[in-house]
Amino acid sequence: MTTPTTTRALALREGGFASSPMPQVPDSLAPFLELREVPLPALKPGQVLIEVGLSPVNPSDLFFVQGSYGQPRVQGQAAGFEGVGVVIAAGGPAGEKLIGQRVSFLGTGTGAWAAHAVSDAALCIPLHPAVPEADGAALIVNPLTAVALVERARQTGGAFIVNAAASQLGRLILGLAKDEGLNAIAVIRRPDDVEALKALGAAEVLVSSAADFEAQAKAALKAHKPRALLDAVGDQATADLFFAMPAGARWVSYGKMSDEAPALTAMGQFIFMDKAIEGFWLSRWLPAAPPERAATVIRQVQERFATGRWQTRVGAELPLDQAIEGVIPAYRKSNGKVMIRP
Amino acid sequence: MTTPTTTRALALREGGFASSPMPQVPDSLAPFLELREVPLPALKPGQVLIEVGLSPVNPSDLFFVQGSYGQPRVQGQAAGFEGVGVVIAAGGPAGEKLIGQRVSFLGTGTGAWAAHAVSDAALCIPLHPAVPEADGAALIVNPLTAVALVERARQTGGAFIVNAAASQLGRLILGLAKDEGLNAIAVIRRPDDVEALKALGAAEVLVSSAADFEAQAKAALKAHKPRALLDAVGDQATADLFFAMPAGARWVSYGKMSDEAPALTAMGQFIFMDKAIEGFWLSRWLPAAPPERAATVIRQVQERFATGRWQTRVGAELPLDQAIEGVIPAYRKSNGKVMIRP
Repeated sequence: MTTPTTTRALALREGGFASSPMPQVPDSLAPFLELREVPLPALKPGQVLIEVGLSPVNPSDLFFVQGSYGQPRVQGQAAGFEGVGVVIAAGGPAGEKLIGQRVSFLGTGTGAWAAHAVSDAALCIPLHPAVPEADGAALIVNPLTAVALVERARQTGGAFIVNAAASQLGRLILGLAKDEGLNAIAVIRRPDDVEALKALGAAEVLVSSAADFEAQAKAALKAHKPRALLDAVGDQATADLFFAMPAGARWVSYGKMSDEAPALTAMGQFIFMDKAIEGFWLSRWLPAAPPERAATVIRQVQERFATGRWQTRVGAELPLDQAIEGVIPAYRKSNGKVMIRP
Repeated sequence: MTTPTTTRALALREGGFASSPMPQVPDSLAPFLELREVPLPALKPGQVLIEVGLSPVNPSDLFFVQGSYGQPRVQGQAAGFEGVGVVIAAGGPAGEKLIGQRVSFLGTGTGAWAAHAVSDAALCIPLHPAVPEADGAALIVNPLTAVALVERARQTGGAFIVNAAASQLGRLILGLAKDEGLNAIAVIRRPDDVEALKALGAAEVLVSSAADFEAQAKAALKAHKPRALLDAVGDQATADLFFAMPAGARWVSYGKMSDEAPALTAMGQFIFMDKAIEGFWLSRWLPAAPPERAATVIRQVQERFATGRWQTRVGAELPLDQAIEGVIPAYRKSNGKVMIRP
């Protein structure tokens, strides 16, 4: 088989970062992406080439293509953070044992919204045959983040708070917490999902738009004494919750849905109450995790999908040539993941 | 010798916390302290009773007596965080070997601004005869904080920033950094001390009131790539400096001289640049430090004082019965430590 040197991809129209703040979901992908043939770089040692099967549209993808994510865009490169596919070539011995394997992968060399993608062999996860394709496509970003965040919460002392808890990631976190016997306090904006999140395993569900939110939060903090605040929002309400938490609390920021710049209204708590603010980024956690720890996490994630305890709800599946016009309408309409099938 | 059951002390007039923000230095101590005989509690196992020789007035003492420190006041108890004295009784075997020894101590059982004080034996530091009394009195809070903070800076990667650098603690930190070959960027408010701090060992001295502060700071960050920000101020300028620092930066808050509530203007840096905010409090660090690490630190501190490399500059020395009226005027007038001699 000849290794391809170009591939059909949703390529970034611009490089670098946006010059002004961007919405969570753009009105259209057309200003940011174009479907075209892009060159594939020569594989370096440790890299592999993957024939992509399916790739999800994650919230972080939408930040990235707009230039408002933590990494700069490279003009002309494919977008897409993760996917599932088959390894068809390797740049060195580290990847050769993966050739022919179906893997979940991160688009670390080139993006996943393409017929082919370059990834690091060390970040490819060989899949058990029982893992459905949609689950394999969305196996890394959300599920590994959920497992890593719940592990971080457990390290800080057990009970924890998770906001934006109605998200796919929030739901994974709640189910995981229940299975592991950790009390999770879910914070959501609207009351619609209260019962669903309780059914998933939340010990408490607080609705931040409710008139009695502060009283509810106070009671929940008193009852559960959460030590970790898993935060995808980053607004002043999150800061207020953090400063209301007991001594030793850790504010773990892994997303920033709000445009607010929260004020540190009680800095003495860092000193006298041993509180701290830290960030979590899967792209940093995964390569830095001790191999046996990463392996344990990956085994857990696969088991959950293979046995059906976790399921990736697919909202829509679009071929590459319908993605630019179709992704945003499907994303807005659906509760499930929007998938791109190259 | 009969163990006393009461002692003459500068006792706190009020308990708990202040109901409104307090200045760094109050106009007078009279609203907060009164000189009177207070009961000494029975010694618990692990505690010792100390005949106090000398005790300094630290900035944290002034926050504490006003009710604006991290620990609540206990009405009727002596104030004073540290001092030097001789152990005269012990509550159990842990302290018995200290009886008759001259020690630096923290007033963990009762305050140090008293003729006698109760402390934890584990927090008493037996003194080398070559350590002068004034140095022994101020041996714990500032010097151990300096050593611990510089150690924290070294762990984060070498070069660091320290603000309020003209303070006694700032000067200790700068000297220590020089001895250990770490580049320290000193931030001060007024230009008076630039040369003195350079002579002490600062790699750079930035004056925050200068018109070109931002440009100076940018150049210093580029040249030294500091990873730790040792912060006693906690204002927006500190936050801005933190967000201008390179990836991996740690904002280590150990004081809060500013009333501002700094805004987190770039929260994505926690996620994507692995930044973090944490607190340092000696009262937590000291008992939690592994004994051999604490012993190393204490040996370093004593050596520095015994050999004269560090010196406690004494600004004034006041007997207990002149302290309430005399401390504040002396504190305002002097660059050196104000000492209370019971």
